Amino acid sequence: MSTNPTIPATMRAVVMNAPGDVSVETIDVPRVAKPGDVVLKLAAACVCGSDLWPYRGLQQVDHQYMGHEYVGTIVEKGDEVSTLEVGDFVVGSFMLSDGTCEICQAGYPSRCVNAGTFTGSQAQYMRVELADGSLVKVPGGEPDDPDKLADYLAASDVLGTGWYAAVAAQAGPGKTIAVVGDGAVGLCAVLAAKALGAEKVIAFSRHEDRAALAREFGADVVIAERGEEGAAKVKELTNGYGAHGVCEAVGTQGSMDQALASVRPGGYVGFVGVSHDQTLDGSDLFRREVHLEGGPAPVRRFLPDLIKRIQTGEIHPGKVFTKRLPLEEAAEAYKAMDERREIKVLLEV
Amino acid sequence: MSTNPTIPATMRAVVMNAPGDVSVETIDVPRVAKPGDVVLKLAAACVCGSDLWPYRGLQQVDHQYMGHEYVGTIVEKGDEVSTLEVGDFVVGSFMLSDGTCEICQAGYPSRCVNAGTFTGSQAQYMRVELADGSLVKVPGGEPDDPDKLADYLAASDVLGTGWYAAVAAQAGPGKTIAVVGDGAVGLCAVLAAKALGAEKVIAFSRHEDRAALAREFGADVVIAERGEEGAAKVKELTNGYGAHGVCEAVGTQGSMDQALASVRPGGYVGFVGVSHDQTLDGSDLFRREVHLEGGPAPVRRFLPDLIKRIQTGEIHPGKVFTKRLPLEEAAEAYKAMDERREIKVLLEV
Repeated sequence: MSTNPTIPATMRAVVMNAPGDVSVETIDVPRVAKPGDVVLKLAAACVCGSDLWPYRGLQQVDHQYMGHEYVGTIVEKGDEVSTLEVGDFVVGSFMLSDGTCEICQAGYPSRCVNAGTFTGSQAQYMRVELADGSLVKVPGGEPDDPDKLADYLAASDVLGTGWYAAVAAQAGPGKTIAVVGDGAVGLCAVLAAKALGAEKVIAFSRHEDRAALAREFGADVVIAERGEEGAAKVKELTNGYGAHGVCEAVGTQGSMDQALASVRPGGYVGFVGVSHDQTLDGSDLFRREVHLEGGPAPVRRFLPDLIKRIQTGEIHPGKVFTKRLPLEEAAEAYKAMDERREIKVLLEV
Repeated sequence: MSTNPTIPATMRAVVMNAPGDVSVETIDVPRVAKPGDVVLKLAAACVCGSDLWPYRGLQQVDHQYMGHEYVGTIVEKGDEVSTLEVGDFVVGSFMLSDGTCEICQAGYPSRCVNAGTFTGSQAQYMRVELADGSLVKVPGGEPDDPDKLADYLAASDVLGTGWYAAVAAQAGPGKTIAVVGDGAVGLCAVLAAKALGAEKVIAFSRHEDRAALAREFGADVVIAERGEEGAAKVKELTNGYGAHGVCEAVGTQGSMDQALASVRPGGYVGFVGVSHDQTLDGSDLFRREVHLEGGPAPVRRFLPDLIKRIQTGEIHPGKVFTKRLPLEEAAEAYKAMDERREIKVLLEV
């Protein structure tokens, strides 16, 4: 085991005590427990839209350490970690993967058969299992530029997830891609669709701040209509056919219905919004004859490419962080996102 | 308009009067009505598994002329038909398509925005709209060999549909493909998966006659288990991962559940069984993270390739016809299929 001797004994970490009740506690710094583990000193943390499900009481929670998005520097590593060193600055996905099973090799590390676990990343330090298969080193170490750091942090989940939606929607040259959902993931799907070469990107949004960022990220059209009117608008913009691909980035029945209604026959729906009480009718799917792919994003697949695009300044996904707060103010970060005052909040650790 | 002067005034045609009640009537021979139409003298007809839904009272029916699978010779054509001639022997799909809209061009003629209609093909003659976009000429004219004729007739639906399932399941070299459903479509999916190069094809079947044909069509393994046991068997045969792709060729909740339970994460489910009362749970789909594609098969996309493979004798899909009966005995053909005494019945016209 290699260790950086400056690791302290304790740290501050965000805990959700119960729905709506977030605080910051002092707990032990996690240490390497298995030979494939590393411990990261986090460079920044953040709150995810999916953290709002338990916050709102729509998912069970009881004194849970929070956070699954992370960038940081390795301060300790187990004996079997062979591709990374103490001192490396890394980005990782919210799903840990061995990188070697057939599922990982086929591009779905999000469903690795040996999936590992990590400690909460809304903290100063975290332990990450399966480090070799899960983490990607950023050349040049931790960036001095806080905006660049935010870009890398976004890659850990919202960018990687939006990217997956756009890939599953087959975004590319000549294609019109519609995006349902104007949260951080939806906005990153807009960015991804454009970066992948989509000819026209249509964003659904009714919030001027989010619509503005969607446009900045590459949306050619923002439509406020929803339901049948929204789908009709997409058809109007696509010679009556519907979008070639749709990214679904919410996870509700309404958003899935919107996605299915907006895509053309033979088209592609990439769904990445964590599904809550969605039901799909088989006859409807049969009749629509579309491709459907979704689930937890295989972010690790995209990280090397995303890191390059961030390094070169081609993309600036960190703009989804509309607010920065110290880790100690995590409760306010949750509140601001719950009330939709902010798109996404970065926590300075 | 070009016409073969031997067209008679009347013909025999199969009619479903009500569930379970099939007869043969004398009616007028259909003639060209629109400039894009042709009239075919059918070379053979057949009963489809989907014809059994109304036969069993599970779909409304009231004095309906039946049949949507066909091969035949053009005996009359409208003025705008430009790629086909009277005398051409053709195969067509059960979905008519203009071949020019963006949906057709993208490979989904089954969802052509200008989809045409036809008269029932369980008859001596039929009218087909959108002939240029829908029909494919077989070089060399009507085959003398009745087995070859049966092969072409199968291409019109069951082979084309099984092929679509295998393509949607991404059958190819190195892949293990499982097929749910041992009807004519499922059996053709087995044939298709093997013809497309799949390394291992697993067929679900509990009927020895069907299992035997599945093996003849290329199934490496036939499993009798269903439900969780069936899925466990597929996993056993795939290093614990599940099949790379699954073809769902029934259309029931049970068959869809079987397909989803048998595929690996990141894998592909091609569903072509006409969906009846199927419900898919969004969270389950999200968790499984598989690709899903299905609907009425875009048979026209595959016909040129299928015709070549039939001509060269590479594939013999006509073996799904386990019985031949004269058109006049259509009632017995339906009965034999309803009672599962025969896999598929060819009607000699």
